[in-house]
Amino acid sequence: MAKDKKLVEQITSMEEDFAQWYTDVVVKAELISYSNTRGCMILRPRGYAIWENVQKELDRRFKETGVENVYLPMLIPESLLQKEKDHVEGFAPEVAWVTHGGEEELTERMCIRPTSETLFCDHVKDVVHSYRDLPLIYNQWCSVLRWEKSTRPFLRTSEFLWQEGHTFHATAEEAEARTEQMLNVYADFCEDVLAIPLVKGKKTEKEKFAGAEATYTIEALMHDGKALQSGTSHNFGSGFAEAYGIEYTNKENKLSTVYETSWGLSTRIIGAIIMVHGDDSGLVLPPRIAPVQTMIIPIQQKKAGVLDKVFEVRDQLKGSFAVKVDDSDKSPGWKFAEQEIQGIPTRIEIGPKDIVNNQAVIVRRDTREKIVTPLDKIEETLKTVLETMQQDMYDRAKDFLEKNTHIAHDWDEFNELLNTRQGFIRAMWCGERECEEAIKEETGATTRCMPFEQKKHGDTCVHCGKLAKYEVYFGKAY
Amino acid sequence: MAKDKKLVEQITSMEEDFAQWYTDVVVKAELISYSNTRGCMILRPRGYAIWENVQKELDRRFKETGVENVYLPMLIPESLLQKEKDHVEGFAPEVAWVTHGGEEELTERMCIRPTSETLFCDHVKDVVHSYRDLPLIYNQWCSVLRWEKSTRPFLRTSEFLWQEGHTFHATAEEAEARTEQMLNVYADFCEDVLAIPLVKGKKTEKEKFAGAEATYTIEALMHDGKALQSGTSHNFGSGFAEAYGIEYTNKENKLSTVYETSWGLSTRIIGAIIMVHGDDSGLVLPPRIAPVQTMIIPIQQKKAGVLDKVFEVRDQLKGSFAVKVDDSDKSPGWKFAEQEIQGIPTRIEIGPKDIVNNQAVIVRRDTREKIVTPLDKIEETLKTVLETMQQDMYDRAKDFLEKNTHIAHDWDEFNELLNTRQGFIRAMWCGERECEEAIKEETGATTRCMPFEQKKHGDTCVHCGKLAKYEVYFGKAY
Repeated sequence: MAKDKKLVEQITSMEEDFAQWYTDVVVKAELISYSNTRGCMILRPRGYAIWENVQKELDRRFKETGVENVYLPMLIPESLLQKEKDHVEGFAPEVAWVTHGGEEELTERMCIRPTSETLFCDHVKDVVHSYRDLPLIYNQWCSVLRWEKSTRPFLRTSEFLWQEGHTFHATAEEAEARTEQMLNVYADFCEDVLAIPLVKGKKTEKEKFAGAEATYTIEALMHDGKALQSGTSHNFGSGFAEAYGIEYTNKENKLSTVYETSWGLSTRIIGAIIMVHGDDSGLVLPPRIAPVQTMIIPIQQKKAGVLDKVFEVRDQLKGSFAVKVDDSDKSPGWKFAEQEIQGIPTRIEIGPKDIVNNQAVIVRRDTREKIVTPLDKIEETLKTVLETMQQDMYDRAKDFLEKNTHIAHDWDEFNELLNTRQGFIRAMWCGERECEEAIKEETGATTRCMPFEQKKHGDTCVHCGKLAKYEVYFGKAY
Repeated sequence: MAKDKKLVEQITSMEEDFAQWYTDVVVKAELISYSNTRGCMILRPRGYAIWENVQKELDRRFKETGVENVYLPMLIPESLLQKEKDHVEGFAPEVAWVTHGGEEELTERMCIRPTSETLFCDHVKDVVHSYRDLPLIYNQWCSVLRWEKSTRPFLRTSEFLWQEGHTFHATAEEAEARTEQMLNVYADFCEDVLAIPLVKGKKTEKEKFAGAEATYTIEALMHDGKALQSGTSHNFGSGFAEAYGIEYTNKENKLSTVYETSWGLSTRIIGAIIMVHGDDSGLVLPPRIAPVQTMIIPIQQKKAGVLDKVFEVRDQLKGSFAVKVDDSDKSPGWKFAEQEIQGIPTRIEIGPKDIVNNQAVIVRRDTREKIVTPLDKIEETLKTVLETMQQDMYDRAKDFLEKNTHIAHDWDEFNELLNTRQGFIRAMWCGERECEEAIKEETGATTRCMPFEQKKHGDTCVHCGKLAKYEVYFGKAY
């Protein structure tokens, strides 16, 4: 296959330097651009279009479960942030403070929201009076800001885009059910749309969200064997509600407290798509999330009839697929490389010979397999190719996850695995924070989650030898 | 018509106190809630759902003209803001400053974006190299912040949601064409979807955007006779591009400058919907923007078969309309009042007698007209009712605009009109800033725009008597 060497050589191979490969992909695929605002990135059209598709898919799924969208202020007065002790301790060190409005110095400084639990509680206190007002199932699409010292595109930036759901319930059971329900919405979305297989479980006390009773998480495994926390759902119990004074009159006409959840997924997920599916030629987007699903590339486009046929095929496909034509004055080889870097799932090559034979060639981005199709069957062929590719991408990632998940029965085996293999290590743990911290200190591996489906690999903690309480997924993480 | 007095009495009549009527509507229709963040409001589900529909409609129209969405940082370093002199003078007094990140004091303070021209220029400088990279047709959906001393929901708040388009072109002509094109996109959207008739024209030098060469505007007339600037489109020429050093190599291989536009529409437009269409019972939403287009209200819902039929009709309608059922345990009268306050364009009443007669009653929100329809024709009837209502709402607003637009031939007539009538005054103007400022000083009326379709009402300026240059729409404005 003819290919423009210059373009492709710009991407460092994964094998050589995974971190540099990642940076090359996000920049050369034109997903982001660096900005002059410390720690913040610019989402360029190709990057933002992926986020728009994430939003569209998630928002639809949210609304099917009764979610309503709202918008709350981006600034939090300091006194409001401070009402919940654990929460302020968790976030105060990493917020940006506004101290002046115009020429005037503020009497009370305000921070840019790092997350909006405090604002939601303060608002809900005003709108919940009776049991008839519950539940409230709110979500907000917005940007948040956390002052980060070192940043990487999508994975860790000071400002990032996300959605934050906040729900308020009459009973603890309902809050717990909602916490689990939304984790499952995330998991289904990641598996079905992003072709990313996951480990689902509960965070340890140490790793849970500041102020939550329980945090559930979905953890994905990147090509380099590191874990990426891809979405979290928190059950707050009634802690926040009590701190913020949310009360309502129940059916028995008594004052009651409410139970709260929150759940969030951010542009970080785009980092997961890149690191689960990308290859040495660039990005590979799963068909169901790709802003462009197929790029038609004319061959010998100056020859009479080629462009006419190409646009005819484009018009034939555009009702069912996100399709574009690259009719720029560059060479086909350049266009192939460009389509590959961008991760467009398929390209369709149409040249004079194809037109004579009434056919086109569909090329899969992931396997580079070429599928010749009669032009009058191109819609069904393309549909099948994209569906097969989506499934294959999931299967490959699932296979990778399984092959890179190991069981450690004792501390020697744990260290051996950590030093010679990559990926998750499943092991038994005593449940004590000191032990968890010691493991991190000694190895750099953290507890990713206690999986919902607990398996037993022994009776004692893999590190300290005390009685084991939980099976845990350990891993090095982004 | 039975109606729950308590609910309806909460809304002050327009006649009595228009400002209080407005506040009552936005609060009682549950569009917003006040927040404890100075100058910021909370968009509740019913308010945010209107904004979501505005976004959906505009975003589709933008993309049809080749717009690509991006996302740039919310913070602007002070040195970056200061590069364009007029722009910084216009905005510096009203921005919020971030001075601390976490515990650390910043070496350079940053402001929360009041608008993003500076960030776009700084970014585009990095991505435009050759004529092949132009044009760039970018848009961003985000929130911005301008420190306001006095605020009113939707009309003027410190933080607000908007879209800001920023485009970069090789020629001045192309930039001018884009500036006009986007103003027309706004105007078509307001007229077709929001049923708001407009005056389109150019702002005077005094009223144009800080740093622009020309600002075009759409101006709408509220029920109280005040004007509301509802969307603006700016042609920047090459001023910003030069200040920020944006250059590219043209086809002749020479370094050239670019020409820029920007255009924005914000949540302020929701204020226009309320003040153009609302009445003493609350909000009235045009069918094409309403998040719920019809509310089915069962009569005697405890009688056997009523709710079954109601949900059967709901299922029949839900493919084509945004439909909800109010099956709460409140009285029909309470539900009617609630549907009216919320501005839901129609309600469908179905009771035991209707079921016997195989019919339903559709009630229009604007005229309260009752339309009896056979159940097997309800889809077509509802479609016609909503389309007619949309058109009638536009026609009424258009009629109001025309009846409240007057021509002043001299200064006495101008004052007479201003004191005895409400609305726009069309008059001739000399084009001089001092004269414009004197008119504002003496009367409180400002130049709203110089309409694109200029008419001549005399040879001399209505105020100073010098030679007239332009016809101007004057008005008191929000």
